[in-house]
Amino acid sequence: MAPSFVSNGNFAADSSGSGTVTGRRTSVYSEIQINRIDHDLPLPSVLKKHFKIVDGPGSSAAGNPDEIAKLFPNMFGQPSSKLVPSDSNTVVPDHKLKIGLVLSGGQAPGGHNVISGIFDYLQDRAKGSTLYGFKGGPAGIMKCKYVVLDSDFIYPYRNQGGFDMICSGRDKIETPEQFKQAEETVKKLDLDGLVVIGGDDSNTNACLLAENFRSKNMKTHVIGCPKTIDGDLKCKEVPISFGFDTACKIYSEMIGNVMIDARSTGKYYHFVRLMGRAASHITLECALQTHPNITIIGEEVAAKKLTLKDVTDYIVDVVVKRAAVNYNYGVILIPEGLIDFIPEVQQLIAELNEILAHDIVDEGGLWKKKLTDQSLKLFEFLPKAIQEQLMLERDPHGNVQVAKIETEKMLIQMVETELEKRKQEGTYRGEFKGQSHFFGYEGRCGLPTNFDAMYCYALGYGAGALLHSGKTGLISSVGNLSAPVEEWTVGGTALTALMDVERRHGKFKPVIKKAMVELEGAPFKKFAFLRDEWALNNRYFSPGPIQFSGPGSDAISRTLLLELGAQA
Amino acid sequence: MAPSFVSNGNFAADSSGSGTVTGRRTSVYSEIQINRIDHDLPLPSVLKKHFKIVDGPGSSAAGNPDEIAKLFPNMFGQPSSKLVPSDSNTVVPDHKLKIGLVLSGGQAPGGHNVISGIFDYLQDRAKGSTLYGFKGGPAGIMKCKYVVLDSDFIYPYRNQGGFDMICSGRDKIETPEQFKQAEETVKKLDLDGLVVIGGDDSNTNACLLAENFRSKNMKTHVIGCPKTIDGDLKCKEVPISFGFDTACKIYSEMIGNVMIDARSTGKYYHFVRLMGRAASHITLECALQTHPNITIIGEEVAAKKLTLKDVTDYIVDVVVKRAAVNYNYGVILIPEGLIDFIPEVQQLIAELNEILAHDIVDEGGLWKKKLTDQSLKLFEFLPKAIQEQLMLERDPHGNVQVAKIETEKMLIQMVETELEKRKQEGTYRGEFKGQSHFFGYEGRCGLPTNFDAMYCYALGYGAGALLHSGKTGLISSVGNLSAPVEEWTVGGTALTALMDVERRHGKFKPVIKKAMVELEGAPFKKFAFLRDEWALNNRYFSPGPIQFSGPGSDAISRTLLLELGAQA
Repeated sequence: MAPSFVSNGNFAADSSGSGTVTGRRTSVYSEIQINRIDHDLPLPSVLKKHFKIVDGPGSSAAGNPDEIAKLFPNMFGQPSSKLVPSDSNTVVPDHKLKIGLVLSGGQAPGGHNVISGIFDYLQDRAKGSTLYGFKGGPAGIMKCKYVVLDSDFIYPYRNQGGFDMICSGRDKIETPEQFKQAEETVKKLDLDGLVVIGGDDSNTNACLLAENFRSKNMKTHVIGCPKTIDGDLKCKEVPISFGFDTACKIYSEMIGNVMIDARSTGKYYHFVRLMGRAASHITLECALQTHPNITIIGEEVAAKKLTLKDVTDYIVDVVVKRAAVNYNYGVILIPEGLIDFIPEVQQLIAELNEILAHDIVDEGGLWKKKLTDQSLKLFEFLPKAIQEQLMLERDPHGNVQVAKIETEKMLIQMVETELEKRKQEGTYRGEFKGQSHFFGYEGRCGLPTNFDAMYCYALGYGAGALLHSGKTGLISSVGNLSAPVEEWTVGGTALTALMDVERRHGKFKPVIKKAMVELEGAPFKKFAFLRDEWALNNRYFSPGPIQFSGPGSDAISRTLLLELGAQA
Repeated sequence: MAPSFVSNGNFAADSSGSGTVTGRRTSVYSEIQINRIDHDLPLPSVLKKHFKIVDGPGSSAAGNPDEIAKLFPNMFGQPSSKLVPSDSNTVVPDHKLKIGLVLSGGQAPGGHNVISGIFDYLQDRAKGSTLYGFKGGPAGIMKCKYVVLDSDFIYPYRNQGGFDMICSGRDKIETPEQFKQAEETVKKLDLDGLVVIGGDDSNTNACLLAENFRSKNMKTHVIGCPKTIDGDLKCKEVPISFGFDTACKIYSEMIGNVMIDARSTGKYYHFVRLMGRAASHITLECALQTHPNITIIGEEVAAKKLTLKDVTDYIVDVVVKRAAVNYNYGVILIPEGLIDFIPEVQQLIAELNEILAHDIVDEGGLWKKKLTDQSLKLFEFLPKAIQEQLMLERDPHGNVQVAKIETEKMLIQMVETELEKRKQEGTYRGEFKGQSHFFGYEGRCGLPTNFDAMYCYALGYGAGALLHSGKTGLISSVGNLSAPVEEWTVGGTALTALMDVERRHGKFKPVIKKAMVELEGAPFKKFAFLRDEWALNNRYFSPGPIQFSGPGSDAISRTLLLELGAQA
């Protein structure tokens, strides 16, 4: 099954000209990568023997069930499914399947293992089946660009990071024309099933496809898999999205290193912005893993309706208190999406977009009179560099590019200014030097941790089982994750049960609500209980690099542990 | 010897109020950190039995030996020393020593192990000795701020990153008054020896101290140890400075992750700036470890007298060629100090400093007439944001802050502009999106690799042996590093042999010449041989995280291997 390795792990170059998008097969592997390929992937015990599917009670929706029912007449109300041991095969053993799969959106460590899981299911339980990988994300479905995934093709990607086996993309299947293209592709390939590996949007899309195929009496079933390092696609049955564990561990290693640097050097405040625009799960998890002096959680900022000045003052107050005990250093975590959580900033940006679109921005600054008082005050409070960024950098639609604002640098400047004031008032005598960091891309493609490797494999294997059992419109759900793998539960949850509607352009649009940090949840409460202690005393914790064997290698994320009720 | 751990590694809180600068003793350790503490530190076999010191021939200097001889009348010409096996003890076994040590300058993984090595030498060979750790760098010597290092104090730092055991600092002992303070401290503590763990400047300082103490017939001997992640303190006898190995592995892991991200996403050029201002060793080593598409080596840029436009064009040419084969992504490594290697940039900055100091910078731009033609042309070529940074951000002396220029962002903007031109000329049809990264602080304080852990321990143990044998003015030298530890050589090299003079303020000043990337050296030549292949074909190599056991854990840096003549 395994292609032969030469001693340095040099895969034989593939010159078959198959036009593959992957470069991996001609790559030279590092020792750790080679070692990981053969890392054992144990399955939950229910997947190791005969199983049958047991359906639970009918489901509803996360919100507005009536509207969801209208949007998904065929899918709405489906029960959740659970795999349970059985005395015999409940699925036809010689039923060969044709399954397509697609990776959708940003990368997350473990995606390749979902694919390995689906493939191995088919090998084990539906021999002779065919697995198609659509290339470059949903566009691959629409354009019918695919590769047949056989064991030689898949094998080198086992337990490897990245999505480069078939790559990913951010296109959406939205318009009637696009749905038609998708239909043509699944008909052409005669697909029994399609697995959509993606985040909230992609899984919403998966459900729309399932509804569409069913409404047209097509045989193609659709199963989703929960992917995103951001950790914001989860619910009771789907305890975590894959990739979160690995990404947070990579970031936490680096934060831990920076903490030791801060303490050794004694003169820098490190402002670390962490990926995760919509929700602050990554920031919270990294805080629980590393115990920084200050952590800003977007959801709290929003709930308390804090202003940028409030956030600045909170940081400044801690800096001043630390200076009083001669700690002129520290580590501060900031979620990438902080700005989006501050209502006054949203307001300012909306006003600026309006002004930039319709008015002349004069050098003299007369245009500022068009701002509301509150927005003008905020604008004047912003550092010059940020003011300019807001005015100059616009996206193709002429809008302010909020994503380009380097929040960590902005905060450093605002803290500097405020500290200068306090110095003049005589309430601060320390020294402040900020260092900015952004940890993002380096965490999305790391080698998956043992947890993500096994979790993804189970998600994929389970997705195969759900399709084989004739299920559609479900998201693969693996649970009981704080127990040993053998005891993990496997099943599927109705995608419509995760949905609510949003009003866009006068129409209801179904959305899987992003799971935000719950201020009443165990992870945030634990953090809130400890943060004052972390602020003034240095309780830095350095997890070190991900280890694949030995100490620490089997730990799961603090967030997950806490949410599952354990004492992390 | 080891303090007892509770199961989660929680060190008993120290409330003795000893005023220690360390926070480590009250820290909770991660599993990996705890595990590393007990990691075995094998010694070179010569250090395991009786040894004696054999002196080689007298030494000279790296340049201007006459001037070095004048500056160091007592130290100049000292032979290098080598430890060789002996039948009996050559040092008085009950000769108790009083030794001080100091960590100087920026952090490098392994510093704590140098200290452990010195301490263990004294425990093993000069029982009853006292080891003083000066706190906060050379300032600790001048102010006589120290802590007595006993085994309980040192133990928790074994194999741990950072310098937080006694912290570090960048002060220098330079003025007659400061030398006097140092003299007073070593007299007060009755020191037999002082170990200076630092980079080129600190080791120069160590030699000046050695000379000074000797000239005054003081008994205090001084030994240096080669520390810097930058890898620019090395010579034949000192094959590498410690910390380089760990830092490069941490950076290479992240670069490797970013490469997989680049290949999976297919739409970003990642510009990665790497720490290392004076020399490009880190960038070269990371390139050899990861095979990026483009790598800029400062020393080559300087040797070929390239302009910023040349560097931009080189990048743009590769981007254009890659676009032609549909690769609209890539990874580019840039040394932190790139700008310092470009003569025309230096010229422009010198002119700007002059203008900023003496002239009025008018909004209309008339001040630009004061620039030479070449500098004006370069200034106009720079992106607007960089122009503003050059004009606005000045250090306390009013000078342009070159270190603050984010070279990677500057290059992204210049590449964008140039590609836009080529698009209009019809010679480029790709898409270009740059992502910038700076990897620095997260690498300086990681858990030392097995190599750095063992190398540092041997450096420290050897430093103890040199002091015990009455040596002074040497730098601890451990060699034969591509062989197993048992076969490593141990000795000391005359610090004056590493020196040259520089003319400053009309006087000769001794300096240890920074070791730059040698364009004729094996590492650069290997890189130069392979870079075109890496540019157009993707030969990305992802080393993965540092592993402390199992595959890859015993590899040493490519630079070192190649310099030692091996085929890396």
